[in-house]
Amino acid sequence: MGEEIESVFESFSPVDYRFKVKDLKNYFSENSFVSHKAMVEGALAKVKAKRGLISKDSADRISAAAMDVKAHEVYAEEENTHHDIIAQNNVTKRRLNKVDHPAVHVPLTSYDKVDTANVLRYKGAVNNVIIPDMKSLVNTWIDVTRKEKDTPQIGRTHLQHAEPITFGFANALYLDRFGGRMMKIKEAAEDLRGKISGAVGAYNAQSLFVDDPEEFEVEVLGELGLKPGRISSQIMQQEPVTDLAHYMISGFCVLANYSEDVRHLQMPELGEIGQPRGPDISRSSTMPHKANPSGAENTISLWKVAMPFMNTMYLDEISDFQRDLTNSASQRFLPSVMDVFDYSVRRTNRIAKNLKSHPENMKKNLNMSADKVIAEPLHIILSSYGHPNSHEYVGKLADQSYITGKPLTEIVLNDVSLEPYLKKFTPKQIEVIHDPKKYLGIASKKAEKVADYWDNVLKKI
Amino acid sequence: MGEEIESVFESFSPVDYRFKVKDLKNYFSENSFVSHKAMVEGALAKVKAKRGLISKDSADRISAAAMDVKAHEVYAEEENTHHDIIAQNNVTKRRLNKVDHPAVHVPLTSYDKVDTANVLRYKGAVNNVIIPDMKSLVNTWIDVTRKEKDTPQIGRTHLQHAEPITFGFANALYLDRFGGRMMKIKEAAEDLRGKISGAVGAYNAQSLFVDDPEEFEVEVLGELGLKPGRISSQIMQQEPVTDLAHYMISGFCVLANYSEDVRHLQMPELGEIGQPRGPDISRSSTMPHKANPSGAENTISLWKVAMPFMNTMYLDEISDFQRDLTNSASQRFLPSVMDVFDYSVRRTNRIAKNLKSHPENMKKNLNMSADKVIAEPLHIILSSYGHPNSHEYVGKLADQSYITGKPLTEIVLNDVSLEPYLKKFTPKQIEVIHDPKKYLGIASKKAEKVADYWDNVLKKI
Amino acid sequence: MGEEIESVFESFSPVDYRFKVKDLKNYFSENSFVSHKAMVEGALAKVKAKRGLISKDSADRISAAAMDVKAHEVYAEEENTHHDIIAQNNVTKRRLNKVDHPAVHVPLTSYDKVDTANVLRYKGAVNNVIIPDMKSLVNTWIDVTRKEKDTPQIGRTHLQHAEPITFGFANALYLDRFGGRMMKIKEAAEDLRGKISGAVGAYNAQSLFVDDPEEFEVEVLGELGLKPGRISSQIMQQEPVTDLAHYMISGFCVLANYSEDVRHLQMPELGEIGQPRGPDISRSSTMPHKANPSGAENTISLWKVAMPFMNTMYLDEISDFQRDLTNSASQRFLPSVMDVFDYSVRRTNRIAKNLKSHPENMKKNLNMSADKVIAEPLHIILSSYGHPNSHEYVGKLADQSYITGKPLTEIVLNDVSLEPYLKKFTPKQIEVIHDPKKYLGIASKKAEKVADYWDNVLKKI
Amino acid sequence: MGEEIESVFESFSPVDYRFKVKDLKNYFSENSFVSHKAMVEGALAKVKAKRGLISKDSADRISAAAMDVKAHEVYAEEENTHHDIIAQNNVTKRRLNKVDHPAVHVPLTSYDKVDTANVLRYKGAVNNVIIPDMKSLVNTWIDVTRKEKDTPQIGRTHLQHAEPITFGFANALYLDRFGGRMMKIKEAAEDLRGKISGAVGAYNAQSLFVDDPEEFEVEVLGELGLKPGRISSQIMQQEPVTDLAHYMISGFCVLANYSEDVRHLQMPELGEIGQPRGPDISRSSTMPHKANPSGAENTISLWKVAMPFMNTMYLDEISDFQRDLTNSASQRFLPSVMDVFDYSVRRTNRIAKNLKSHPENMKKNLNMSADKVIAEPLHIILSSYGHPNSHEYVGKLADQSYITGKPLTEIVLNDVSLEPYLKKFTPKQIEVIHDPKKYLGIASKKAEKVADYWDNVLKKI
Repeated sequence: MGEEIESVFESFSPVDYRFKVKDLKNYFSENSFVSHKAMVEGALAKVKAKRGLISKDSADRISAAAMDVKAHEVYAEEENTHHDIIAQNNVTKRRLNKVDHPAVHVPLTSYDKVDTANVLRYKGAVNNVIIPDMKSLVNTWIDVTRKEKDTPQIGRTHLQHAEPITFGFANALYLDRFGGRMMKIKEAAEDLRGKISGAVGAYNAQSLFVDDPEEFEVEVLGELGLKPGRISSQIMQQEPVTDLAHYMISGFCVLANYSEDVRHLQMPELGEIGQPRGPDISRSSTMPHKANPSGAENTISLWKVAMPFMNTMYLDEISDFQRDLTNSASQRFLPSVMDVFDYSVRRTNRIAKNLKSHPENMKKNLNMSADKVIAEPLHIILSSYGHPNSHEYVGKLADQSYITGKPLTEIVLNDVSLEPYLKKFTPKQIEVIHDPKKYLGIASKKAEKVADYWDNVLKKI
Repeated sequence: MGEEIESVFESFSPVDYRFKVKDLKNYFSENSFVSHKAMVEGALAKVKAKRGLISKDSADRISAAAMDVKAHEVYAEEENTHHDIIAQNNVTKRRLNKVDHPAVHVPLTSYDKVDTANVLRYKGAVNNVIIPDMKSLVNTWIDVTRKEKDTPQIGRTHLQHAEPITFGFANALYLDRFGGRMMKIKEAAEDLRGKISGAVGAYNAQSLFVDDPEEFEVEVLGELGLKPGRISSQIMQQEPVTDLAHYMISGFCVLANYSEDVRHLQMPELGEIGQPRGPDISRSSTMPHKANPSGAENTISLWKVAMPFMNTMYLDEISDFQRDLTNSASQRFLPSVMDVFDYSVRRTNRIAKNLKSHPENMKKNLNMSADKVIAEPLHIILSSYGHPNSHEYVGKLADQSYITGKPLTEIVLNDVSLEPYLKKFTPKQIEVIHDPKKYLGIASKKAEKVADYWDNVLKKI
Repeated sequence: MGEEIESVFESFSPVDYRFKVKDLKNYFSENSFVSHKAMVEGALAKVKAKRGLISKDSADRISAAAMDVKAHEVYAEEENTHHDIIAQNNVTKRRLNKVDHPAVHVPLTSYDKVDTANVLRYKGAVNNVIIPDMKSLVNTWIDVTRKEKDTPQIGRTHLQHAEPITFGFANALYLDRFGGRMMKIKEAAEDLRGKISGAVGAYNAQSLFVDDPEEFEVEVLGELGLKPGRISSQIMQQEPVTDLAHYMISGFCVLANYSEDVRHLQMPELGEIGQPRGPDISRSSTMPHKANPSGAENTISLWKVAMPFMNTMYLDEISDFQRDLTNSASQRFLPSVMDVFDYSVRRTNRIAKNLKSHPENMKKNLNMSADKVIAEPLHIILSSYGHPNSHEYVGKLADQSYITGKPLTEIVLNDVSLEPYLKKFTPKQIEVIHDPKKYLGIASKKAEKVADYWDNVLKKI
Repeated sequence: MGEEIESVFESFSPVDYRFKVKDLKNYFSENSFVSHKAMVEGALAKVKAKRGLISKDSADRISAAAMDVKAHEVYAEEENTHHDIIAQNNVTKRRLNKVDHPAVHVPLTSYDKVDTANVLRYKGAVNNVIIPDMKSLVNTWIDVTRKEKDTPQIGRTHLQHAEPITFGFANALYLDRFGGRMMKIKEAAEDLRGKISGAVGAYNAQSLFVDDPEEFEVEVLGELGLKPGRISSQIMQQEPVTDLAHYMISGFCVLANYSEDVRHLQMPELGEIGQPRGPDISRSSTMPHKANPSGAENTISLWKVAMPFMNTMYLDEISDFQRDLTNSASQRFLPSVMDVFDYSVRRTNRIAKNLKSHPENMKKNLNMSADKVIAEPLHIILSSYGHPNSHEYVGKLADQSYITGKPLTEIVLNDVSLEPYLKKFTPKQIEVIHDPKKYLGIASKKAEKVADYWDNVLKKI
């Protein structure tokens, strides 16, 4: 069978025809999987040579032969073997003289290669592509947070106007949440473990082959920059990969949350931010005037696909006895999930970078509720001067304002029963009552603090 | 940009490099999506011609131009338009003279095409590939049910020996459950609806274009063998597609359940069935003797991927106002889910066809518990003759048998207190007590009945 | 052990202390589960009496004793038996003379009772509480649809202004989607099946007991208004219950979607609807002025709990051989899911009933985009008069309007190249260009049609 | 409204009538939620007194009044307020003189209390109940691992016989995986953060109240043994709670996996372990002889309910702007999930403690495949002596053994082509070929190492 070459548009999965991050090809394509398994073969040969079990030349030949193999050859051979690793061994051997054959694969079991290769791929993808992409987004958000730390905006809870914040403060929360996930992903990738412990994890074959199988495992994995776990079965413990997936999905939730805010803030009635025409804003095929925040919507949509995959991850923690194969096909889908996460990190970064805030609209919206917003500070100050039921009382005045249409400030200042308290108000307290844009708490300072914190972290990692 | 052509092993998704059902290419590739959208364009042109809005020649030219377009051109153009449907319109128009341009797409909105094209694809895939594949599996299971309807096997609950059945009876349950899902999938595909109702579902543009927009919609969809729904927004109601997905996932659960039994029955300690070496049985790369039921395991593994996707489907039922775009990327993944389902139907069919039962081992296992199994019929018969606490009493005798190692039958026949009841036993009742393989209820008859039922159904559909 | 009586606020599950629909107690409490199992006992006794296997008096005594049992007694007895059904049998027998003991439970297996009782409970809850509640909401939505069928509102896609609709039209889509789910839930409840087929589904015990076990099953289930399935194992096929759950979850998605729109339309910047102070609008404990749409938020929150439970349902379709017990505890949670669905139906109904539309704000918002909205009809009409690239051209004019701040209408009417086309416009077409509130398509008519359709349906069911 | 007191069997949720861990009542009942919110009130009062804002006496009165409140009073009051925290404040105030009223709750927002109270509850439940329960199970598994470290058992992959291990080694894997999850749960609970940052997280009200709101937050939380996060909105960042839930769900997967093995090893054909009659082994109501491993099945069943709840957790990471309320009802379900996890930890512990291994059956099963099992070591040794295609060649001999029925050992020893290699075999290698029970790798040593590791950990935490 020759190699099957065709248009990417013959693909079924949108990962392959639409959402592929090409920088991840070296880690996530099936060809890359084959070559990472070859790297394990190479590491094995190298350690054998170091231990004098084979010659250095033989090790070099085996390593070179292994790395030369392409997926399409393995698949052709698998038609005969019905086993992918035996197939890959066979096509590797074809490139070698008989004298080198006995050293190929022995004393490994398939999953010594598969699990170790996958750990290599995931660490490579995370450290070389995904974390750099995340850092870049964190950096963008640091910039936005600093730039907008003093831009007043109405804080919203329940989609209703609550109390004022600044746009930079709102952004700082995304920065901090996403930064936190980034650190966890980094740590989870570091916690991944390889294995060279054989068919049932007890180093049966390895024990026949060398006297110190645990040390042998440490050496082979060491060649690849990896470490073994404390104990394994035929496969590595599934939990560390599950943790990595969890932190990625959880980070994806932060992106989706941000995207929700991005599309809400662009509602024409709010108009608090804008995005330039381009790949993240689409038109309509029938409404020539429309500017749709499709980039943000796309992130949410891909999150909807990735998120439930955690159930697959949890299901794969369960494996009968020393392992069943029911996690094999399913774990092959994990790279697609990582891909759409990384795709969305990049897209969110582009959106965050290009976003324009519209401070005048923020001010306009804040002013809509300016008069009502003072209800909270009023209640707080009144109670601090001993008003016995300030919450209820101010609530009543707010209702009165709603019914009569009179400004709440006016009603308050004319309320006789409040007079004794109002007299005690400090100038700063008076100011807040008259201009809720002053009622910002420590929004600006907090935004700055969070930005500085992450700036420092970025410098160190 | 030229067409991107590359090895399928550069794919990230296992759907594309490993589990693709090639017969589904006409429905599930991105090229097929483009061509199905072109079919909607063609249907639109045809109806316009019938109504005298454009000439028949123009309609033919538009239809031909539309069908000529390939996905790679659309994607190249999308780089400029940032909108897939506008891009497809543009590359269609390039094949036409200006005189035909105004008739392209107008008065449609993008999702008049997208949703209608998807319904066409799903119905095509279901009716032409998936249902035929399911029928073939149903047929295989009818054969197995009939062939094995009299083969005694111990029925198992809690993985413990319960009471005897026949292997055909066990199979008949899968036949019936899966047949039921097949009928529901057929019905759900029939219930899918297209739409030509415009950007917000109110036929705004269509109303300007024709006086009878609902009739116009009926005609355009009619050209494609489809019907409209009762009401839509920019998109068709999501529920009918969700139902289709539900029945497929639920059918996938039946396959997974069958696969669990298949791999359990092949445990060396049970040995009740066997599979021939081949694509559904794999070896080990280090244990040359092993025969692993990897086909059945593969089905379970793919089910683990497909099943949680229902959450994505449910999430996509929620769309702000007249629609948001957060179901766009996610719904592009549905064909991959349908593909792995169909792949697993085919694989399960091959497994079921090649399965060999080992009646001698079934008999051996049944005999292991033969003596204990009589506890139920004994209790039932005793109580029918008025024994006041037969369940408890027989339970005690069973415990006694367990402790002493004496056969339960022997203990029972020597129990003085049971004598008055035992005397009343009919010959058939005595027979059951002595040979639990006779204690089969109506397993054989039921198996036959179920097989006949589905045989009849297959003839009609 | 005496009965454990305590405050409901000692409960852990919010279903029990906060979201319980009391009308469902007869179906969903543990006491009701016990009494429904007793009903199966009663039906069994009745059929035995009819067949002359026991006396009518005995049947009456057994039935009365069974119905007298309370859950707390069963649980106390289960401490000894470690089996809930044996425990229930024992406490039933304690109320009877020894002469009646042999007839209790025999020849059933536990799940003949459990599955049949659950079907009874689910059908009862659906037919007597949930469907009536759904009908009531459908009815409310019919009213709103009719009342608001002519109230213009801007249609929104991507949260952006698209083209005009009416508020009644928007409502009609929820009405139709939810009505559709209601019909499916009704049908799915009707499709539930009971079973009296014994420990492995082959009627082993029943065959010893009667000569016509299938007919016997039909009779016992018939006493309860139920029918058997085509074939079962120890348990009924799981698929019909899964279907019922699916339609309920899918209906819950419709409620969640509606709730999203409800809370969006109340954003202060939109203000298109309002809700009165009361149980569905909450205040803030620190911001006395706030009115939060917490009722709608609550529905979405409960949907988040219920929706992923479908995965549990799918997992429960898989059961080893003639059944394992891993669906036992999990299926006990299904009533909680049905409860929160029904709770949300009622709450949504109250919200929908009390909702006030604010047509003046709808008009204000629509007018915001009035000038832009004409881009679509303009493009459609131009293309119908043969303009070769009206979509692109109108898009350019819209951009020009955006940049210069000049109204699009003005730009269009002054555009020399458009003059030849504009001259052909009919008066109705001219009107639409000048007042997009006229550009409503058939929104009003469609709303009416859908309302009429469901009004008719309600009359029939 | 008086307190609603009723039988727990009027509950709908099995958490409340069947699976409740009573030791968790102080953390997970609704009454406990109310009292934990009261603790926040108390801490607030204490800090105010320390700062001289109120008298120490007043603080004591407020604290005492707050702690005296019961849920049923709050619920009665909520009928009027439609807000749970305002209701709780009101009933607290009723116990106080007017002079103390202004100090109640001010300057908090509801979620300063709710989120902080929940963190307190989760930390309390984890540290005082769940971790001790997990430690106890870890301890049991240490014992089993040590006791069974030398008991030979066939290792199984794909449910087929692979290579030998020891029963203690198999157990050590569960020990290590579960121990790992325990450490992560401990760490995640430690990472939970409280908040006193006000309605939008910017300390707006707090800033009016004190000059150092961040320090004030540190003090109030400090009274409760908690720390603040880096930044919050109205609510704490959801991620730390999501992490805690993740590790619990992942630990639940380990329990489910163990339970799968427990029920498989008790299949009558395997018989490698047994459980005593009691609460984890149930009978059948119709088959008096049966012993069902229902305890293990119950754990799997509860896992099926808990696992998909992670989707709810992920959905709750998304909250509009400074928060919407759609995580409120849903997060109320988290304690139920934690409860069924802890319930299953306890149950698994009881099962693991009572489990009896049947070494003679393990030996019998191992011997079934003894002859075949040597295929792997043979292939490894042959290749180490330079055999060019030992895997394929031994595979052929294994097939020959299968066809002819001759033992593989016999075939091997008579194979002329193997003679040159066999001559080189060391005595230890010869021994393995003749007795695969010697082919245990380092199973025993590894089991011991893992047991020692966790023994040490338990001593430290």
